Amino acid sequence: MAHNIEVELTSNKKKKPVTEQLEFGKYFTDHMFIMDYDGEQGWHQPRIIPYQPLLLDPAAKVFHYGQTVFEGLKAYRTPDGRTVLFRPQKNFQRLNLSNDRLSIPAVDEEFALEALKQLLVIDQDWIPEEQGTSLYIRPFVIATQPSLGASTSTHYQFIIIMSPVGSYYAEGIHPVKIHVESDYVRAVRGGVGMAKTAGNYAASLRAQDTAAASGYAQVLWLDGVHRKYIEEVGSMNVFFKINGTVVTPALNGSILDGVTRNSILQLVRSWNIPCEERQISIDELYEAHKNGTLEEAWGTGTAAVISPVGELNWNNERLVIHGGQTGELSSKLYNTLTGIQRGELKDEFGWLVQLSS
Amino acid sequence: MAHNIEVELTSNKKKKPVTEQLEFGKYFTDHMFIMDYDGEQGWHQPRIIPYQPLLLDPAAKVFHYGQTVFEGLKAYRTPDGRTVLFRPQKNFQRLNLSNDRLSIPAVDEEFALEALKQLLVIDQDWIPEEQGTSLYIRPFVIATQPSLGASTSTHYQFIIIMSPVGSYYAEGIHPVKIHVESDYVRAVRGGVGMAKTAGNYAASLRAQDTAAASGYAQVLWLDGVHRKYIEEVGSMNVFFKINGTVVTPALNGSILDGVTRNSILQLVRSWNIPCEERQISIDELYEAHKNGTLEEAWGTGTAAVISPVGELNWNNERLVIHGGQTGELSSKLYNTLTGIQRGELKDEFGWLVQLSS
Ligand SMILES: Cc1ncc(COP(=O)(O)O)c(C=O)c1O
Ligand SMILES: Cc1ncc(COP(=O)(O)O)c(C=O)c1O
Repeated sequence: MAHNIEVELTSNKKKKPVTEQLEFGKYFTDHMFIMDYDGEQGWHQPRIIPYQPLLLDPAAKVFHYGQTVFEGLKAYRTPDGRTVLFRPQKNFQRLNLSNDRLSIPAVDEEFALEALKQLLVIDQDWIPEEQGTSLYIRPFVIATQPSLGASTSTHYQFIIIMSPVGSYYAEGIHPVKIHVESDYVRAVRGGVGMAKTAGNYAASLRAQDTAAASGYAQVLWLDGVHRKYIEEVGSMNVFFKINGTVVTPALNGSILDGVTRNSILQLVRSWNIPCEERQISIDELYEAHKNGTLEEAWGTGTAAVISPVGELNWNNERLVIHGGQTGELSSKLYNTLTGIQRGELKDEFGWLVQLSS
Repeated sequence: MAHNIEVELTSNKKKKPVTEQLEFGKYFTDHMFIMDYDGEQGWHQPRIIPYQPLLLDPAAKVFHYGQTVFEGLKAYRTPDGRTVLFRPQKNFQRLNLSNDRLSIPAVDEEFALEALKQLLVIDQDWIPEEQGTSLYIRPFVIATQPSLGASTSTHYQFIIIMSPVGSYYAEGIHPVKIHVESDYVRAVRGGVGMAKTAGNYAASLRAQDTAAASGYAQVLWLDGVHRKYIEEVGSMNVFFKINGTVVTPALNGSILDGVTRNSILQLVRSWNIPCEERQISIDELYEAHKNGTLEEAWGTGTAAVISPVGELNWNNERLVIHGGQTGELSSKLYNTLTGIQRGELKDEFGWLVQLSS
C-alpha cells in the first residue's frame, strides 16, 4: 500500500496526566490514526488527526452485530532515550487472523505498522518513562455500514488510539486471586475464542463482576464442551509450574494466541526448563495442589505482562499457590521480559522494533 | 420513571422511499429516541431528537468489548387506519433479560414502551401500508464509557431507531435453502446465546458468508457441546412438523426465546395440533426425512415472520422438504400471524397494542 498518510496536527494539546494518576486506558494522546474501507477503494484515506469522537450512524453494524476486532500492544521509552515497540508485527498478524474470522477485510500489516510509527513519532512525548509505565496502543476495526441486515458490513474504519498507562492491576506484580468459573462459558471450539473480538469480552463481564464481588481479580475460564479443561484468564493466557515443568494450555482455537505467552515460551525454553503446551484439566491442578507439586501459576498478557496467581478458587475450595507469594520463576520471567521491553536487558530474540526518529 | 420526554422535531424531513425500494433496515425515520445512563442519575434525559449520527469517544467500550444489547419488533398500519405494535412488552422484557446477562442496568419497561409510542406518533407517516410491509423498530443499548479496561461500563445510551421495511428475504414467503453448519459454532450453554447481543451475530458472519457463497440463505446452528442438536437459524427460531407433530428446540439457554416462536406455539396449541419443545438431533431429522415423516420446516422471527425451509444441506446431503414448496401449516401460520399483526384477523390472544392517537 503506497498511500501517503495525511497529517492534521492538533492546535490544542492536552495536559498530560502525572504518573500517579495513570489508570489503564483512561487517558489518550493528542492524535489518532484512522483509515476507511469500502468495496471499491479498499482501505483508503489513511490520516492522522487530533484525537476526537467518532461520528457514526446509529444503525452502524458495529453497534448491533459486533463486527469488530482489536489489538493491544505497548511502546516503551528506554533509559537511553529510544522509543521501542514490543513485537508489533505479531499484533498486526493477529489482527488479520481476527479479521479473517470476523469476515473483515485484511489490513496491510506493514502499512499499519508504518502508520503506527508515524503516530508514535507525533505523540512521542506521551510515552511515560517511569518503571512499570508504558504507552498502550489500541488498533481496532469497526463495521460502519448503516444497515440492520445481520450480514457482513460493506464499510469499515481502522483506528489506532494510544494511552499512557501504569500497571494494569492495582495490585501491581503482587499475586492475584482468581475464581475458576464453573457456570459461565466464554468461548467454545468452532466459535470466535481465538479472535480478539468484542463479543468474547462482553460474554465475560457477568462472571467477572460476580467474581469481583467475592474479592477475585479475574476469572479462569474452563472449556465450553467438557467444562474441565483450563482455557485462559480474562485478558491473559495462563501458565503453571507443576513439578518443575512449565505447562500452559495448547492453542486449541478457543483461546487467544498471546504475544506474551509466545515470548514466555521462548524464554522458558531458552533456559532449558521443561515446557509443555497441552490440555490441562482443573482436576489435574487440584491433584497437583494437593500433592504439593503445583509450584507456581501466572497469567501473561500485554497489559499486565506477568501476573502471579496466589490463589485459585474452585467450587469454594481455595487453592493457595506458593504460599500466596510471587514464585521465583514468575519473578524471573517478569524481570526478564520487562527488562527486555524497556531496553535494559539484551534483546536476544530481536523482539524490539525501534522508532527511527 | 416519571421523566418527561423532551422533543426536538426535525426542520428537515427526509424523502420517504417508495415501497419497491424498501430493503431491510436501510432507511430510517426522521426521529430517534435516546436516553443516557450513569451511576448517579440512573437512566436520565430521555429525548426524541432528529435522526442523527452518534458522537462517541473512540475508546467507548461498545467498540472494544461489545457491551451492547438490542431488540427488534414491528409496528403495522391496519386497513382501518390504526397503528399497532405486536407484543411490544415481550421485547422490552427480553431487552432486560439481555441487559442482565450483559451486566447492563435494566431499563424501565413501561417507560420504554411509552417512549416508543411517543416516537411512533411523531413518525407515524413512515409506517408503510402495503401488504408485507411494516415499520421495523430497533431499540438498543450501548456502553459508552471511554475506557479500555475490560470491565463493565459506567455509562450507557439507550436508543430507538425505526426503519420502514418490506420483506426480510428477497425470496419473500418462498421457501429458503438452509445450510446445516458442522464447523462453526454460534453459542454454547453457559454463554450469551439466549441474549440478543452483538457478539452472537458477529460469531455467525463467517459461516453465513460461506453458506451464502454456496447458495444457502441461512445457516442452521447445531449445539456447541455435542454438535448434533438443532439450535436455531441466523435470526430465526426453527420448527419442524414430523409425522403430524410440531417440534421446536426447547429453550436451553443458548437460543433466543423468540416472540414469534412463542406466538406460533400458542397458535399451534390453540388448533390442537400436537406440539413439543424438546431436544431434536440432526440425526433425527435425517431419519425423519428418509422415512418420509419430515413434513414441513420453517423459521420464525420478527423480520421474516415465517420463513418456510425448502431444503436443508447437511454434510453435502440435500434434504428437500415438502418438495421444496411451502407446506400447508407454514402457510396457515403465516397467514394467521400476519393477519393478526395487520389487524385483519381477530386478535384473540390480545397481542396487539394500539397507539392511542
Ligand atoms: C482473551 C485474552 N487472552 C490472552 C491475552 C494475552 O495476549 P497478549 O499477550 O498478546 O497481550 C489477551 C490480550 O491481552 C486477551 O484478551
Ligand atoms: C438469534 C435469533 N433467534 C431467533 C430470533 C427470532 O426472535 P423473534 O421472533 O422475537 O423476532 C431472532 C430475532 O429476530 C434472533 O436474532
